[in-house]
Parts: sequence; structure tokens; C-alpha cells
Amino acid sequence: MNCSIAYLGPAGTNAEDAALQWANAVAQQTGQAPKLYPYPSIAQALKATANGQTFYAVVPVENSTEGGVTTTLDTLWQLQDLQIHCALVLPIAHALISRLESIGDIQTVYSHPQAIAQCQEWLERNVPKAKLVPTPSTSEALQRLEPGEPVAAIASQRAATLYNLPILALPINDRPDNCTRFWVVCLEPSPGGTHTSMAFSLLANLPGALVKPLQALATRNINMSRIESRPTKKSLGDYLFFIDIEADVKNTDVEEALKELQSYTETLKIFGSYKILTVPPTQA
Amino acid sequence: MNCSIAYLGPAGTNAEDAALQWANAVAQQTGQAPKLYPYPSIAQALKATANGQTFYAVVPVENSTEGGVTTTLDTLWQLQDLQIHCALVLPIAHALISRLESIGDIQTVYSHPQAIAQCQEWLERNVPKAKLVPTPSTSEALQRLEPGEPVAAIASQRAATLYNLPILALPINDRPDNCTRFWVVCLEPSPGGTHTSMAFSLLANLPGALVKPLQALATRNINMSRIESRPTKKSLGDYLFFIDIEADVKNTDVEEALKELQSYTETLKIFGSYKILTVPPTQA
Repeated sequence: MNCSIAYLGPAGTNAEDAALQWANAVAQQTGQAPKLYPYPSIAQALKATANGQTFYAVVPVENSTEGGVTTTLDTLWQLQDLQIHCALVLPIAHALISRLESIGDIQTVYSHPQAIAQCQEWLERNVPKAKLVPTPSTSEALQRLEPGEPVAAIASQRAATLYNLPILALPINDRPDNCTRFWVVCLEPSPGGTHTSMAFSLLANLPGALVKPLQALATRNINMSRIESRPTKKSLGDYLFFIDIEADVKNTDVEEALKELQSYTETLKIFGSYKILTVPPTQA
Repeated sequence: MNCSIAYLGPAGTNAEDAALQWANAVAQQTGQAPKLYPYPSIAQALKATANGQTFYAVVPVENSTEGGVTTTLDTLWQLQDLQIHCALVLPIAHALISRLESIGDIQTVYSHPQAIAQCQEWLERNVPKAKLVPTPSTSEALQRLEPGEPVAAIASQRAATLYNLPILALPINDRPDNCTRFWVVCLEPSPGGTHTSMAFSLLANLPGALVKPLQALATRNINMSRIESRPTKKSLGDYLFFIDIEADVKNTDVEEALKELQSYTETLKIFGSYKILTVPPTQA
């Protein structure tokens, strides 16, 4: 069985951390360690799996500080057939990495926009005058650390080790319990579990148009653990809704709720039912 | 009257376009043209207004292709007292700007992540191998266009003129009706109008916890034109909800709905009632 995993690279990203965790879980089950393939974007990692180039993709869905990862949601909506196999919740600790000796000398901080946002308060307190410059990934921020320049990067402790760069401060994320939820997706039918994810567009933009789908769940005591709206990209004010519920799609109440939902929605996509694995923080 | 306007700079950004539109509207009303002040981030533009350094801030809220601008929502929730004075809907046309003669020679494209996302399909079709590199603003992308380098930037036609740089293609946004909604905020009470914006956190995370607030609006025939969830940043799965309704806060039905809403919500913030100004596309 080809057990390859696509992820947002290069090596050292938090997405690679998640992909490694999933690779370990697969290796324990099958005795075979899957090979990891970095992709330059989340969309490309998902497409590689949808096209059969890799078996799994491990992609971020939501961070506890910064919220939904919109590329993941938008790409899943566009692609056919990808199903969620499992969710992984990973603690995310950000490190300030620099060749400089003192934090006071830093004039520019590079990192992925999500990482910068997760350290916003720390940066305002400790390097209030530094320019914050986005990079396509946390790992690529490390490539900007030219010797002799007054620069720093935000990335993981593992990335610092991997690229042999010194850590000036750790952790610098504003919330100590900062964590990110990833989805493991593939073309196989989802295995079932405690959570079901779906997305829909509504039939009509009338008062209460969203209330009916939510009522279909609430009256059956199905807990909705998350709702996120995304533009349909057709016109301003036209939305899709991504919903997670705490139940399996094969539960009788859920089956009935989905039947009712069909009558209110234009398109309804079920991304599958799956379990959530929570990864404990690693001891440094 | 000090009629200054804060916006995400530097000169040439789409936020500056919106700020200029608002400056024109103010000048027509008062006979005085307000002065524009660029800030390096949306959060800093909003804080400048909350602190009384500038009278207005003009900030993006939502794009028709890319969805909510999370910094704006999160910062408004955190700050006290800022009220929405007006909404502006601006058509956004992106240009591919480069000193190169042929699109085929481009190896790297710089721009703000939102602008890159709004041109994703065009970029995949026309420069499939180019590296897409985020910058803090569309204007800063233009500063990366060193002569002789195989690079391009995505910014507005106005920015290209301002920085005296050639346009290779226009428009390159995937949706011809791409537009962004901006809010004009200030410390004055909002003037009233067709739309009301609010945000709340829920009392309890129970099945149907979100249904009741939405029902409070729907049963009174109040149309909710938008809902967006944001993390409370406390823990994964804990959300705030930003809601826009198509009614004035002083409407009797709305007053009653808000009274009911109070009983379901932990914190409820009303950002005010205001009108929406739609700016027609400029003829080049």
C-alpha cells in the first residue's frame, strides 16, 4: 500500500510536525512508515491527494488563536471526493530564532502570517519597533536569517534544530495553550467516529435561512461544535457554511437531520465522520 | 474639526483607495478635506482612532472572494468604544505589474496574501511555475521589483501609476466583480442606517446554543446578512460570532431581539447602525 503523506513544506513547518505524528500512527498500525512529501502550498498538498499522487494529505484547519485556515476549507469545497480520515490536535509553541545575541537588536521579524498573529502581543511588548514581514511558511522565514543582519524569525523549536539556528526566546505565543487542529484526508471512505464535518450553500437568502439548518440539528440534540462562513466567491454577501457536529453520520438522528438539511440547502457536502487524536506537548 | 483618517499604508494600497473615497465624501459634506495617515497594520490604524490620534479609521472587513479580514474583527472586539460610521463597498481590480516585457519570464510574484488569493486561478493558468511570496501590503510588493530581476507584483492600477511602474495585465482577479467592504469607524456614536453590526460570545456550549440568538432575529423577520465565527483565543472550539443584520438598532423589533439576545450571550457588543455606500468602478 502506497502510504505517502503530502504536507505544506519545506521541512520544519508545523504541518510537517503533524504529518510526522500521522506517519507514526500509520507505522504503528501497519508496520510501514509512510514517506512524507512537502508541497509549496496547502492547496497543492490537497490536490496531490485528490489526484492520487499521495495517499494522505495532512492540512491545518483551525488554530485556537487565529481561527480557520481558509485555503483548506475553500480547496476542500472545490475538490471532489476527498474525505476526512482523522483529526489531529497539536500544541503549537513558537520560538524566536535569531543569530543575534540580544532581542533589542532585532529590526525585522519574518514568519508565516498565522505564526506572527499568534505572537502579536509578545512582539508588541518585546520588539515594538520591529517590522513584521510575512513568509510563505515558518521554515522559509529561517532562510532569511542572513549572518550580520538585524533579523529574527518565528518558527518551531524543531525547525531551529533542523536548520542549526539559535533560539532567543521560547515559547513566544500569546496563549500558552495555543494549538492547531489538522485534518488527515484521503480518497478512501472516512472510518466513522465522534465528529462529522460538512459544508453547504443555502437555497435562499431570506430572514432565518440559516436558522432552519441549525434547528434541524438542535432539535435532535446534535451539538454543533463549529460553524464557519466562507464566501461563495460569486458575490459579496453570498456564503457557504462549514459545520462540525459531535456525532457520527450513521447515527439515526444525524441521518434524519441530514435529510431535513437537504431540503434547505443548494449543495450539501459531507466530508465524513472521524475521530480526533490529541497529541500531548513534547517535553523539550 | 480634526478630520484625519488612519488606514493601512503605505500609499497605493486598496485601503488608501477606500480612505480617499471617504475623504471625498467628508470634503463634500464639510468643505474640508481630511488628512490621510498611513499605518503599518490594520490593528495600528484602529488603535490610533481608539486613542484619539486620528478621527476616523477606514479598514477592510470582508472581500467577496477571500472572506473576512480577521484582524479587523479581532481588534474591534478587543478595543473599547469604536463605532461604525459607514460602510464602503469598493470594486477591487488587481494588476500584474513588472519591469519585464513578457509574462513568461516571471519567476516570483509578490503581493499581499489577500491579493494573491484573489488572483489564484489566473496565476495558476499564466505563471504556473512562479513562486508566490507574501508582502505586508500590495504597495510593499512594488518595492521588491528590482530592475533586471525576474519578478512581478500584484497591486492596483493606481499604485502602478504612483510608483511609475508598467502594467503587464489588468485585471487579473479571478472574479470580475471582486469587491471589498470597508468600515469607517470613529469614537462618535454611529449615525443609524440600514445595517447593524454586532458580536457576541455565548453563555454555554450546548446543542443549539447558537440557534436561540439566530431565532431571536428570524422570528422577528430581521434578515441576518452575515455571520462569521472567530476564536475567543481561550481554547480550541470556543467562539465569538460577528453578525450583520439588515435593520437599524432603533427599530422596535431589533430592540426586542437584542433584549432577548442579552439572555443568551455572555458579552454582546453593538458596533452601531450605518449606511452602505457602494462605489462604482472607475473608468480607466
